[in-house]
Order: sequence, then structure tokens, then C-alpha cells
Amino acid sequence: MPENQSTQPDRHDQSNQPVLRPVGRVESPLQRRQDAPKQGDEGAPDAWLVFDPGVERALRDLRPGDEVLVLTWLDRADRTVLAVHPRADADRPETGVFATRSPDRPNPIGLHRVEITETDGLRFRVRNLEALDGTPVLDIKPTLGAVDER
Amino acid sequence: MPENQSTQPDRHDQSNQPVLRPVGRVESPLQRRQDAPKQGDEGAPDAWLVFDPGVERALRDLRPGDEVLVLTWLDRADRTVLAVHPRADADRPETGVFATRSPDRPNPIGLHRVEITETDGLRFRVRNLEALDGTPVLDIKPTLGAVDER
Repeated sequence: MPENQSTQPDRHDQSNQPVLRPVGRVESPLQRRQDAPKQGDEGAPDAWLVFDPGVERALRDLRPGDEVLVLTWLDRADRTVLAVHPRADADRPETGVFATRSPDRPNPIGLHRVEITETDGLRFRVRNLEALDGTPVLDIKPTLGAVDER
Repeated sequence: MPENQSTQPDRHDQSNQPVLRPVGRVESPLQRRQDAPKQGDEGAPDAWLVFDPGVERALRDLRPGDEVLVLTWLDRADRTVLAVHPRADADRPETGVFATRSPDRPNPIGLHRVEITETDGLRFRVRNLEALDGTPVLDIKPTLGAVDER
């Protein structure tokens, strides 16, 4: 890390509650939670990620064929839920949400592994995204390959 | 999904900027960014996740031996950065941050794959966490196995 970065003052938010700034939105045929599969590889449709012009520079090295992690803000989740029956199956014992992938949890950040299939300016088509239409997009990260490929 | 959940009104935050509520903190010997490895499997030390009492119920099904994803808020990151030289190597071409794992990005959410090695009430010891001491913890998610194990 360059010395000038390490000697800058810490950039803490002034409050203890960090504020997210969505960088785009999901466009998807999925409109309601009960229509969505539990995970993207369980029959989710293709969707578009539509980014804000302000982050165009951050996007420029993403290409069709790339497998990436999409982080979203699950804005229709219930943040007060601490335990659930996994996969909404009442026969399964109630489980603490940190041991489940329930969208209902204190910080409902969605984590989706998808393949980019098409790009069109600020619009990125992806395969198998279980997020609902309108869901805010927070971040894109490459999946990590072997250490020597990083 | 139970019908009563699907018919509840959406729980949007009132603003367009969702607010995170950290559920704990990292305790680590890593004090400065220049001391931290780029990824947890590149020589990061063991660390403790120390949770707030309010989320005890969400934690109760996590056990030593579990491999989990820890989501953190990288509070010393620079949110204005949209492109970087990967791994701070000036010989590598500048790359949009969404194609890198740089901590500097619009929403600096850290994603760490770790193993829980010990639990002590609200304290969870984990192996190979590259987050700095004091980093807010946002969420824990299980890694996803095969579809039929979910």
C-alpha cells in the first residue's frame, strides 16, 4: 500500500451507523418475495443490473462471461428477525439467522453469485439472480480464484 | 413463505440511503492497513468476532468447525475510489474497483470466508481474518453447499 494512503486519517463515518449509497438497481421479472426462488441456482430468471452514471469508471473492466458476486440491499426484508425456520419449512427447527441465508436478518445484504451475459453501457445482464425488481445494488466483486491469479 | 409475510407492507427505509447497524466488532492484532494481507488466506492471523448481546439469538446455531462468510464494514476505506492498481502494484493497469477486491470502493463491505475455531458466549474465534482491529461486523452467512443440503 502506498505510504500516502496509510498515513491519511481514518475515514470513519461520524455516526456509528454507516450509510450505504446504492450504485444501481435490479430490473427483474420477479416482483414479489413469494415468486422468488431461495437461491439464484434454483430457477431464478435472468435480470439486468442498471448502474448509476457516477460509477461508470468502476464498471469498466467487467465483461460478458465474468462470474461475479453481486451485493444488494434486500429492502423488503424484516430486520427485526433473529431466528427462522430454514427455507420457511415449519418442520425444520427454528435456527438463528446467522446460520441461514434468510433475507430477514439485522443487515439484509444479499450476496449473489452470477454470470454476466451481456453489457450495454450502464446495463449489465446477469444469469440466475433471485433478487426482486427494484432491489438496490451495493457492490460487485470478482470471485476469488487461486492465490497466484489475483 | 408464509402468507402473512408476503402481505405485510414493504419495510423500506424512509430515505434512499439504507443505514447499517453493526452487530459486533473485530478484535485482531492487525492495527493498520499496511499490516494486513490482501486476503485472509494470505497469512492473516486469527481474530475474535465480539457480538452485541442483542443478536445472541441469531448466533446460537453457529459452532466451532463451521465455515462461514463474515460481512464487515471496512471503515478505514476510501469510498471515493472508483479505479485502482490491483494489489497496489503500479505495474498492473488501473482497473475499475468492481473488477477488484480493493477495500476502497463506493460501499466498502468486506466479505471474508473464515472457519469458526472457538466460541465463548458472544465471542467467536475465527481463523484467517484480514480485517483490522475494531472493524464493524455486519452479518454472518453460512457458505452454500449443494442444493440438496440447504
